[in-house]
Amino acid sequence: MSKNYLMTPGPTPVPEEIRLEMAKPIIHHRTKEYQAIFKEATEGLKSIFKTSNDILTFTSSGTGAMEASIVNVLSPGDKIIVVRGGKFGERFGEIAKAYGVEAIPIDIEWGQAPRPEVIKETLKVHPDARGVYTTLCETSTATVYDIKSIGNIVKDTDALFVVDVISGLGADDFENDGWGVDMAVGGSQKGLMIPPGLAFLSVSQKAWKVVESSRLPKFYFNLKKYKKAYLDTDTPFTSAITLVIALKKAVELINKKGIDNVIAEHKRLALATREAIKAMGLGLFSRSPSYALTGVNAPPGINADEIIKLLKTEFGVTFAGGQGELKGKIFRIAHMGGIDEEHTLESIKALEAGLVKLGYKFKAGIGLETAKKALARR
Amino acid sequence: MSKNYLMTPGPTPVPEEIRLEMAKPIIHHRTKEYQAIFKEATEGLKSIFKTSNDILTFTSSGTGAMEASIVNVLSPGDKIIVVRGGKFGERFGEIAKAYGVEAIPIDIEWGQAPRPEVIKETLKVHPDARGVYTTLCETSTATVYDIKSIGNIVKDTDALFVVDVISGLGADDFENDGWGVDMAVGGSQKGLMIPPGLAFLSVSQKAWKVVESSRLPKFYFNLKKYKKAYLDTDTPFTSAITLVIALKKAVELINKKGIDNVIAEHKRLALATREAIKAMGLGLFSRSPSYALTGVNAPPGINADEIIKLLKTEFGVTFAGGQGELKGKIFRIAHMGGIDEEHTLESIKALEAGLVKLGYKFKAGIGLETAKKALARR
Repeated sequence: MSKNYLMTPGPTPVPEEIRLEMAKPIIHHRTKEYQAIFKEATEGLKSIFKTSNDILTFTSSGTGAMEASIVNVLSPGDKIIVVRGGKFGERFGEIAKAYGVEAIPIDIEWGQAPRPEVIKETLKVHPDARGVYTTLCETSTATVYDIKSIGNIVKDTDALFVVDVISGLGADDFENDGWGVDMAVGGSQKGLMIPPGLAFLSVSQKAWKVVESSRLPKFYFNLKKYKKAYLDTDTPFTSAITLVIALKKAVELINKKGIDNVIAEHKRLALATREAIKAMGLGLFSRSPSYALTGVNAPPGINADEIIKLLKTEFGVTFAGGQGELKGKIFRIAHMGGIDEEHTLESIKALEAGLVKLGYKFKAGIGLETAKKALARR
Repeated sequence: MSKNYLMTPGPTPVPEEIRLEMAKPIIHHRTKEYQAIFKEATEGLKSIFKTSNDILTFTSSGTGAMEASIVNVLSPGDKIIVVRGGKFGERFGEIAKAYGVEAIPIDIEWGQAPRPEVIKETLKVHPDARGVYTTLCETSTATVYDIKSIGNIVKDTDALFVVDVISGLGADDFENDGWGVDMAVGGSQKGLMIPPGLAFLSVSQKAWKVVESSRLPKFYFNLKKYKKAYLDTDTPFTSAITLVIALKKAVELINKKGIDNVIAEHKRLALATREAIKAMGLGLFSRSPSYALTGVNAPPGINADEIIKLLKTEFGVTFAGGQGELKGKIFRIAHMGGIDEEHTLESIKALEAGLVKLGYKFKAGIGLETAKKALARR
């Protein structure tokens, strides 16, 4: 088998027309030509975030923008509320701790979404909380949170509403402005289907006001520097030029289709995958499954990592494993970004063949058949 | 004219064979295949830095690794010595200030290199200084500093010796271990001839000891996280996969030639350029010129930015302008990274044609002739 099917929740396959953009001779970043590209990429992102707020671009992993969402609006000793239902929710808490900020955790079982009322109650108990930090799609558990309802609660308080949309953007519904999000953290290698290396942060007027009084130290991630540079269509430090050029192309492709159509397409792939998974007698891990990716429980007696290894080596299909406490228990199939119908069907075909090899008893072929029917139906 | 000659001190032209690597389908970062690439790239960097110390890779601009060299070894109220002879020396001071670290400046005239004795005296006056922060090639003034002699002074003290080699590496002589450098900050888009987006930091045993007691807050640039991940041939956060793949290829190309031969080649281009510049009656800006790039004084009555604009629009040759107080006064011609003989000769030819157009009086053709002769001689 010569083809490779990358079905991981980041990076997702990068379309050829974007890869070819990256192969062109490099240009200098302090030129009108680059400024036009940078502006088009950044402005185009606004339609995808559904925002009229500033979106600032960092050369970093997504975690860099998560750090920016903390160090620019808080001061030592401040208190924030952090929803912890997976690895990435936990990360907000770890960053807060590293900077001397108290993180009030809302701990939820992995695979569950937080009930909005719990956020409301926690805000009542901690009226001095400066922000509520949570996640659109918690990638580690393939779980989508009800950001709209949480936003409705936070908007009536002085707290900022900060959402990690790194893996959810472009697959799960998201409305930055409509849902009252003050800062949304994005990444490049998921729904935006370019390689990793860029991170994004949308910043509301409510957030900008708080930036002024923040006393946590920062330099590389100092939002004021990015804002000042952005007014000149620039970044304060040399940005990852090639990735910005790729981003411009990706944003163009997405907006040509329309973000709602792109989301509908990934939803279609997700639903077809899930019907197939159920037809094969397998169970979904999440109680609130995201459309960005699906977490599947490994069948009893089979280690999920064994399935992943077999599919990678024998069929060229790459799934992601479980993280932390889920290692060996689940595998994760992505639907976001550059993943299309062919990827989806090939990976289900490979999963069936792999499970047969590993001795799992089911009606072989039912998965692919179900997925095909589901795709034809929608 | 269809060809473009990028003669800026970063990004430098990216060779085609590296660009084609970036156009290949992306691979996942938690795989043996990627680990092997990451390891080869990182280990290969050691020959270029001339070090056996750890080199850690960040997804960020070079400034990110500068910040890492401060936040990982210092605590609030600490004192460091910073050589300020241009924009990048100043930046170390700005980062220190942002983190509540006192920066004792050694201010030198732009275009001059610091006298090593001044460092010695400053260390005597401030025996509690935790580090000496300086630059191999101060890009803004095209000036190389005597890092070897400064290293000889710092190594007998408790202070760490931290050097920004972002633009000098691969063009100016540099020996990380031989010269007693505790941390060297590198970037991807200069001598390493790949696009911007990766930054590097070499870390000595002396520096690692200090990391343990550092109390400045950090998360994304926390060296301990990178070291821990590196032991598993990994990064703590998703790295810029495509750029690491490009880096592996670049490092392979450089080490195949041998770093000393690569440096000799850029030195040859720099010296030929300077002979040509002098033959044209123009003056060099720096009193201690780097081999990474040459700063040229604009002739009286002509604004340097006018020259740059004309060369870019009419001849496809991109030079860099002066920064800060040097804006309009100098232009800068790079010799580093992907810049070769063809680039060098074409840019001198264009410079001559441009100066004729702008009314500068000189023996037209003498520059190109001189450069050709100089290249033939070496």
